[in-house]
Amino acid sequence: MAKWLKEIGPHADIVVSTRVRLARNIEGFPFPHILNEEKAEELKKIVMESVISGNSTLQNHFNIISMKDISQIERLNYLEKYLVSPDLIRHSNIGSALINKEETISILINEEDHIRVQCLLPGLQLEKAWDLAQNIDDLIEEKINYSYEEELGYLTACPTNLGTGVRVSVMLHLPALSLTGHINGVLKASGQIGLAVRGIYGEGTDFLGHLYQISNQVTLGITEQEIISNISDVTMQIIQNERSARDKLLHHRKIELEDKVFRSYGILKNARVMSRSEAMQLISDIKLGINLGLIENNNMEILNELTALIQPGCLQKYYAMELSESDRDIKRAQLIREMLG
Amino acid sequence: MAKWLKEIGPHADIVVSTRVRLARNIEGFPFPHILNEEKAEELKKIVMESVISGNSTLQNHFNIISMKDISQIERLNYLEKYLVSPDLIRHSNIGSALINKEETISILINEEDHIRVQCLLPGLQLEKAWDLAQNIDDLIEEKINYSYEEELGYLTACPTNLGTGVRVSVMLHLPALSLTGHINGVLKASGQIGLAVRGIYGEGTDFLGHLYQISNQVTLGITEQEIISNISDVTMQIIQNERSARDKLLHHRKIELEDKVFRSYGILKNARVMSRSEAMQLISDIKLGINLGLIENNNMEILNELTALIQPGCLQKYYAMELSESDRDIKRAQLIREMLG
Repeated sequence: MAKWLKEIGPHADIVVSTRVRLARNIEGFPFPHILNEEKAEELKKIVMESVISGNSTLQNHFNIISMKDISQIERLNYLEKYLVSPDLIRHSNIGSALINKEETISILINEEDHIRVQCLLPGLQLEKAWDLAQNIDDLIEEKINYSYEEELGYLTACPTNLGTGVRVSVMLHLPALSLTGHINGVLKASGQIGLAVRGIYGEGTDFLGHLYQISNQVTLGITEQEIISNISDVTMQIIQNERSARDKLLHHRKIELEDKVFRSYGILKNARVMSRSEAMQLISDIKLGINLGLIENNNMEILNELTALIQPGCLQKYYAMELSESDRDIKRAQLIREMLG
Repeated sequence: MAKWLKEIGPHADIVVSTRVRLARNIEGFPFPHILNEEKAEELKKIVMESVISGNSTLQNHFNIISMKDISQIERLNYLEKYLVSPDLIRHSNIGSALINKEETISILINEEDHIRVQCLLPGLQLEKAWDLAQNIDDLIEEKINYSYEEELGYLTACPTNLGTGVRVSVMLHLPALSLTGHINGVLKASGQIGLAVRGIYGEGTDFLGHLYQISNQVTLGITEQEIISNISDVTMQIIQNERSARDKLLHHRKIELEDKVFRSYGILKNARVMSRSEAMQLISDIKLGINLGLIENNNMEILNELTALIQPGCLQKYYAMELSESDRDIKRAQLIREMLG
């Protein structure tokens, strides 16, 4: 299981994970959407070479996964762990991913851009994720000429990534701001300063399990450090708001909160049929309960893992079988019971 | 705790308890609603004498409880165990009850009638409850002249009890007929043949915990044996219907049923706040689950006990304190967790 799911990082009571993503393209190759399979294969080899034969310690322990060689369930499984993107799956005839053993780094090849470098760490680790991404970036650049123009910066297939090509995002667990309704103010303020807020797996306004993904919208006319510092400032502010909302809940609505948390625990431990969205909601409740010391449990890692494992692709991979939606609901409940012991 | 709550009787998968009640009055005394306290006290002594100095083995182990000497919580507690009636509590200045140790027999004095003999047994035990009531009746009649007229039978304060003065009732747990909606047919048919169907504690159409109390309406122009045999026939028919509805649920909606049962169990074991009606509902689900072999549990007696213990009076008596409604919801959840272990 991916490190960002298994390990507890800084500010883990609120920040699930930090992600830095770079969009890069190679000189002399057309963008992927007009790239033929032969050229795509050539490009893939060049990128692989640059990473694997590089002189960095980062070069080790990478697996190469070609989208065309794996099943749709396996693709979904990688998607749900954020190791590949929907776009890479759409380009499955030419798309590949280099993924390290810890699953903290994935280098997507022939996605929307030729190269997407992604670094994903548990908790709030913006600088560390940025350094990791930059190291990979340098490693590749030793062997490859990126498409770059002095005035524009890195050239990308879609203009929204032009310039730095950097997208930084943090995944936040904000149950108290959600329960108290203050989340709407947070969302509005984030939008006003040019940040995007999405649900888990970018599913619009459907904030499953009170999880909110905050990322920069602007990549052009701003330095990488400014992007990171913006996200960092906003995240620290939201963390403070969420903690204060949790304190208030604990002081003014303790028994109600306790009841909610324990009921969710009882249902998760006992249900025989469970939808994804209900599971996300219940897991969120229990995490809040653990964070507030209402429920004794050292299973935070298991709950984080579950957040991914209960997704359709991971679930089918876990049970190594194709499952209809109603069968998934049954197997999901079973998996949860097994994991919670 | 009362025997009918602690022990498992015949057809206990469906029949919670059987009750036979006789209404009797004593010659030479006005009916209780126009009885002064002095006369009421005299009447009470006569009845007590007749039971306690009788020559039957039944005479032993009776406690005498005067309504005026106990708190409202204690009165409620007896009411919720069906050992006294709302009417006895309303007449608390003159009302008393002789209750045996097993709490299977209660003789109410100065209720709506001078004497109400009640026998309450676990499961379906119509004949046994009837015999018990008759023995008590005989015991009293050895010493007392009942108000009786050849043509009318026993005279009672309210004409609905005239004649035999007998009310026979069974408490049925009918979750499957409820879940499938077939209960409405049962209720209608019962009404058509002169039986009354009430919820637990006679609360109108609010069938808390899928519990249905079926009793005869008619007491005049029909023999005691006919009353018992009517109730017996109807009960056996309903038992058959409920069992067949349970079988169907088990075959066609097993996973759904299992999910419901285990969720209810998880919530009962974990909730921190619980209303009476929710508790009744969840206990009902678990009993159904145990009866269908979906959930392994030897706690049927505990669940039956809980049905009474979670009621407001029993709960306050258990914790030996007056509790507001919201405090009761918290203590109820606590008691349930303790009892389920």
